[in-house]
Amino acid sequence: MLVKDRLLIPGPSQVPPQVNSAMIRPIMGHRSNDFSKLHEEIGQKLKEIFQTENEVLILTGSGTAAMDASVSSVVNEGDPVLCIVTGKFGERFAELAEAYGADLTVLEYEWGDTYDLDEVKRVMAEKKYKLVCATHNETSTGVTNNIASLGELCQKHDALLLVDAVSSMGGMDIKTDAWHVDLMVTGSQKAFMLPPGLGFVSLSKRAIEVIENNDSKNYYVSLKKAKKSQSKWSTPFTPNVSLFYALDAACDMILEEGLDTVFARHELLTQACRKAVEALGLKLLAKEENASRTVTAFTGDVDTEKVRSIMKKKYGFAIAGGQDRLKGKLIRIGHMGYMDIVDLLGCISALELSLKEVGYPVELGTGVRAAMEVVYEGGRA
Amino acid sequence: MLVKDRLLIPGPSQVPPQVNSAMIRPIMGHRSNDFSKLHEEIGQKLKEIFQTENEVLILTGSGTAAMDASVSSVVNEGDPVLCIVTGKFGERFAELAEAYGADLTVLEYEWGDTYDLDEVKRVMAEKKYKLVCATHNETSTGVTNNIASLGELCQKHDALLLVDAVSSMGGMDIKTDAWHVDLMVTGSQKAFMLPPGLGFVSLSKRAIEVIENNDSKNYYVSLKKAKKSQSKWSTPFTPNVSLFYALDAACDMILEEGLDTVFARHELLTQACRKAVEALGLKLLAKEENASRTVTAFTGDVDTEKVRSIMKKKYGFAIAGGQDRLKGKLIRIGHMGYMDIVDLLGCISALELSLKEVGYPVELGTGVRAAMEVVYEGGRA
Repeated sequence: MLVKDRLLIPGPSQVPPQVNSAMIRPIMGHRSNDFSKLHEEIGQKLKEIFQTENEVLILTGSGTAAMDASVSSVVNEGDPVLCIVTGKFGERFAELAEAYGADLTVLEYEWGDTYDLDEVKRVMAEKKYKLVCATHNETSTGVTNNIASLGELCQKHDALLLVDAVSSMGGMDIKTDAWHVDLMVTGSQKAFMLPPGLGFVSLSKRAIEVIENNDSKNYYVSLKKAKKSQSKWSTPFTPNVSLFYALDAACDMILEEGLDTVFARHELLTQACRKAVEALGLKLLAKEENASRTVTAFTGDVDTEKVRSIMKKKYGFAIAGGQDRLKGKLIRIGHMGYMDIVDLLGCISALELSLKEVGYPVELGTGVRAAMEVVYEGGRA
Repeated sequence: MLVKDRLLIPGPSQVPPQVNSAMIRPIMGHRSNDFSKLHEEIGQKLKEIFQTENEVLILTGSGTAAMDASVSSVVNEGDPVLCIVTGKFGERFAELAEAYGADLTVLEYEWGDTYDLDEVKRVMAEKKYKLVCATHNETSTGVTNNIASLGELCQKHDALLLVDAVSSMGGMDIKTDAWHVDLMVTGSQKAFMLPPGLGFVSLSKRAIEVIENNDSKNYYVSLKKAKKSQSKWSTPFTPNVSLFYALDAACDMILEEGLDTVFARHELLTQACRKAVEALGLKLLAKEENASRTVTAFTGDVDTEKVRSIMKKKYGFAIAGGQDRLKGKLIRIGHMGYMDIVDLLGCISALELSLKEVGYPVELGTGVRAAMEVVYEGGRA
């Protein structure tokens, strides 16, 4: 029986038809004036979305390429680096810092928790760090870390702050400049509504200074090279031209909807999803105050892998399980980017049917009713 | 706020991405061998979907073009024609027969009812008709007429039977040959999952004989010309080449899913939709035994136009109202072609929210629960 594919993993996410259409424009030469003009226009739009006055570099690579470029462009062997780890993607920063020979301090927290600000304060008071790495939105757990407080702390201690906002930028209210983030990293394939293949990094003046005076051993993933080229609206290596077309279209969609409306939509999706999960007697991993607005993770007295398999086979919903230490113990629903409330209501309906099929006690309609009440009470206009 | 467009009117219907992709293939010359080969392949696939051993002609035009071609290719001035009218599209046959100067008899029934077989028997016993026109699936009311009985009757009286299956072919079990239908007409934009622009007509041997010996005054909408060209896998005039690509892809999708599975899916969508409508205290127009499997029409103590407007604006669902004499009194949901159960569950959720917003008494979750019960009890595998 026909079942439509519905991609609700926490990235890659759904690509709007208008973005897909943009990608089939004929390829232009990446050293042409036309391409430079496009690049410059996109550059302005990215600044708005990043809420920054600074430049946002575009790299042809994944979000990890952007993380790698950021770490490797700042860190020399022996540099003191503090990594705050609250999940799988926090661990990735630690792996990168280690790979580039940093003098590494890791503060690790339970998966599902956020970091402890007091502990970070104590640790940063004891040693001067060149770089502090933190995850804004931990995709693996659906937890959002407070970046504003970390920004203040890093300013005070004159450390650069590098933040992974791969799964939140474009969906959550991220104030790059107001939060004093020196390197804000994201990728194309989440709330940006693009296929995978581009990474973005914004650079503060302090970050530029450090990077330009740094003697990094990287080659492709070099922010120094990217910065130098982008000052002429060019790229050091061949960029993914089709994805630049797509990026331009996606930025237009985000800015036309309006950042505040985009954030409100992600808030609505989050609240509807959380209320439905609770109504079904399942257990949310993140506390309300730390809950991500782009991915909701939950568990419960049920075979999560079997539920996911039915969701996919019978209803077309690709949703995620747990990663690493949470493998087989978690369900994660991505609600980011090109997604509206009807998508979520459909997903909750399918979740209920799948739960019932594996013998979980569910009165059909319970979850979707809870989600609908959020929509209705929100007076969604 | 982002709201995705969801086309659930009773046609045009949603086009699958793989069909859209097919349409951007480069245009080929319509007199080339490659095009003939494609045409021939499509011809075989159409026969399977029409459940006929006979030829299915492809016209570049709408469903009405195919209806016009059928009437005008068979009818000469003064020919006795019987039109069975159960709604707006039945009326269209009468208008066509009149336009071509037929000696017209119209049997008209209440919109929402099916025809009365005994009355048709009486009328056909009294006069010899060259052509009987009937609607299989009346889009305007969501009523399906019994064609098998009409086919027997026409065989007995040696009248040609012309049937409009525009909104049902490809979604409902239509046995062109077994039902003795001489001219079976459909269009591309309903359960065939294509954009509008093509019409199809299958021709029985009796129909071919009449048409070839007929002195029709039509030019573009000529089945005689289409038949002559198609015998060499060509077309009399320039065909819509892109839609031929799309048609090939759509036929593949239908045949790969399997006709029986396609019909079962439309049955599931119908039952889920009908049960939800009833659970919400609304009134179905068609009785169960005559209910269309591609469109469900209902009414109720509610401002239907206001409900439709909220459905569109807040949830993206384009659903239809009533036509002509039922204007402003009806809601029609199309569930044909590229549509699965999650699409319907989303639509019912949005319907409930919209009903509640206009003050209709609805306990949120009532309709969607009823639809989910149909899915669950159907043991949908």
